[in-house]
Amino acid sequence: MIKTDILIIGAGPTGLFTVFEAGLLKLKCHIIDGLPQPGGQLTELYPKKPIFDIPGYPSVLAGDLVDNLMEQIKQFQPGFTLNEKADTIQKLEDGTFIVTTDKGTQHHANSIAIAGGLGSFEPRKPLIEDIEFYEDKGVEYFVKNPELFRDKKIVIAGGGDSALDWSVFLSNVASEVTLIHRRNEFRGALDSVEKVQELKHAGKIHLITPAEVVGLNGSEHLESIDIDENGAHRNIKTDYFIPLFGLTPKLGAIANWGLEIEKNAIKVNNALDYQTNIDGIYAIGDVNTYPGKLKLILCGFHEATLMVQSVYQRMNPGKKHVLKYTTVSGIDGFDGTRKEAEKQVVKSIE
Amino acid sequence: MIKTDILIIGAGPTGLFTVFEAGLLKLKCHIIDGLPQPGGQLTELYPKKPIFDIPGYPSVLAGDLVDNLMEQIKQFQPGFTLNEKADTIQKLEDGTFIVTTDKGTQHHANSIAIAGGLGSFEPRKPLIEDIEFYEDKGVEYFVKNPELFRDKKIVIAGGGDSALDWSVFLSNVASEVTLIHRRNEFRGALDSVEKVQELKHAGKIHLITPAEVVGLNGSEHLESIDIDENGAHRNIKTDYFIPLFGLTPKLGAIANWGLEIEKNAIKVNNALDYQTNIDGIYAIGDVNTYPGKLKLILCGFHEATLMVQSVYQRMNPGKKHVLKYTTVSGIDGFDGTRKEAEKQVVKSIE
Repeated sequence: MIKTDILIIGAGPTGLFTVFEAGLLKLKCHIIDGLPQPGGQLTELYPKKPIFDIPGYPSVLAGDLVDNLMEQIKQFQPGFTLNEKADTIQKLEDGTFIVTTDKGTQHHANSIAIAGGLGSFEPRKPLIEDIEFYEDKGVEYFVKNPELFRDKKIVIAGGGDSALDWSVFLSNVASEVTLIHRRNEFRGALDSVEKVQELKHAGKIHLITPAEVVGLNGSEHLESIDIDENGAHRNIKTDYFIPLFGLTPKLGAIANWGLEIEKNAIKVNNALDYQTNIDGIYAIGDVNTYPGKLKLILCGFHEATLMVQSVYQRMNPGKKHVLKYTTVSGIDGFDGTRKEAEKQVVKSIE
Repeated sequence: MIKTDILIIGAGPTGLFTVFEAGLLKLKCHIIDGLPQPGGQLTELYPKKPIFDIPGYPSVLAGDLVDNLMEQIKQFQPGFTLNEKADTIQKLEDGTFIVTTDKGTQHHANSIAIAGGLGSFEPRKPLIEDIEFYEDKGVEYFVKNPELFRDKKIVIAGGGDSALDWSVFLSNVASEVTLIHRRNEFRGALDSVEKVQELKHAGKIHLITPAEVVGLNGSEHLESIDIDENGAHRNIKTDYFIPLFGLTPKLGAIANWGLEIEKNAIKVNNALDYQTNIDGIYAIGDVNTYPGKLKLILCGFHEATLMVQSVYQRMNPGKKHVLKYTTVSGIDGFDGTRKEAEKQVVKSIE
């Protein structure tokens, strides 16, 4: 059982910054995220895109912002349960919580901070008969471990950056890569489009456009797919089919935790501490809603900061916390490090 | 008469970032500040100190944060009335405001954002008889224009960084620099202390410690000061006396605007838009108070962002504003510039 003060659900920018503000109050944090790495949307959807509205950054790449946040919280040694989704929650008699993931990992925490962003990201699945049957038997919606495809025949479907970039990458791994798209035009970084074009000419990627996958075959495991190419049907042998049609956010299992939900978001008390209708469960960042809510990263930072003060009161009832400024007091990390402004000297002048 | 959509009072980080968020909504801003340059406390009190709790910056010098914010808002061309303090306010029949500074400059705005931080900074004045009489006649609490002291005799009092640094700087400007401190020990950056020591040995700074200025003399203008040096009194001829004992924040004239004040801060509606008890006047950043308020820069950023949405509604009643993400939509500056993420191409692969 993993034990922590604040269990954060969601490793996006708001969840990450929560670790920092909690650390200043000597509260330990652990983060659960369904994706294999921290950063949420920023890492998964647009790591190379600039964000222009982070205060103090005229421009910052989403991936760099995540790196900077990871560096900023490092000293407070957060724990991570990645690649697992928060599934069930149980409130104990003492007011603390046990959260169990879809893979059975258990976490015991005083308070819960749901920083789930737009929700967990679910792949957009193509409407092909029996596709669920082939999941984990030849149909993969993410490329989590490229080695799975070593020396295999694969078919990738999609017309965006993911489809282009994974086709390029896996052309050096798989024995045969086929890229299928329902249009002739691809939408992606110029660089990626040109690279696929080169690999096509070099015979390392088979391109079939405009075409759609319309059927899956195989008894135990995927063996071949049926495609519709301009009205003509044909069959292609393949070991794997990887549809990359983007992700769609879903609140997921959290929707069943008894929280007050409005427009696919969790209602919170924004006049006080961003707490939900359940005492000890907070919701911060894009996942919450309140009058005037804006789904902006900078708002999540503020909400996280006020929320941890409320957790502190919950854990230390009646104790008054005096805000100390990092510029004045410095920061003591849980790892024994200390950050502080250069000390002024007190010195006589002879 | 200066005309603008939002008149921001205070050019600290919260006031500056307001220009950016307002600009995204096509609202023009103008800023009044009593200090001679933007940045508020960050520039005036600790430009060289690192701040550790700006989200996404493991560490950033206060002065650099101000530079970055100025760069971020440049495209929205804010106006500035610097070195003047907001003094009186008049609400017109149409709900707009006229704000006049202590120097008589008038500003007409739809809405007012008070981002005055801890208030305007007033110098801490030493308790010397008749000191008010000599203000602007030889007594200066700030070094606004070093040229005022060119080839003059000056006496600086104080034991901190300001006193040390201005003594060093003015030793190349004034004909004679005397530094007086009531202790033998100075408190400042090691570098500054050592520099004063050198200049003392080179005869370019006269040091008198422990000593205090106890009297001022002169009929029209300051001519000499009386000092108490370890109980012994003596008189020193000087053209200027510059006591640098730090600054103390005061709400100033704004305290008389009819706003609801609590603990030297302005009460706002934090559950909605950070509006004060007067419709159209908002207070954001360290100057405001509400349940759970934290005086942190990152909170000011959030407050500014929500506030401008309310101003937009005030100026465009009934019009629905749809939040656009800068990463997706880019930013159109008022100066004709455009910032945007690199475009994706739509291209056939032949």
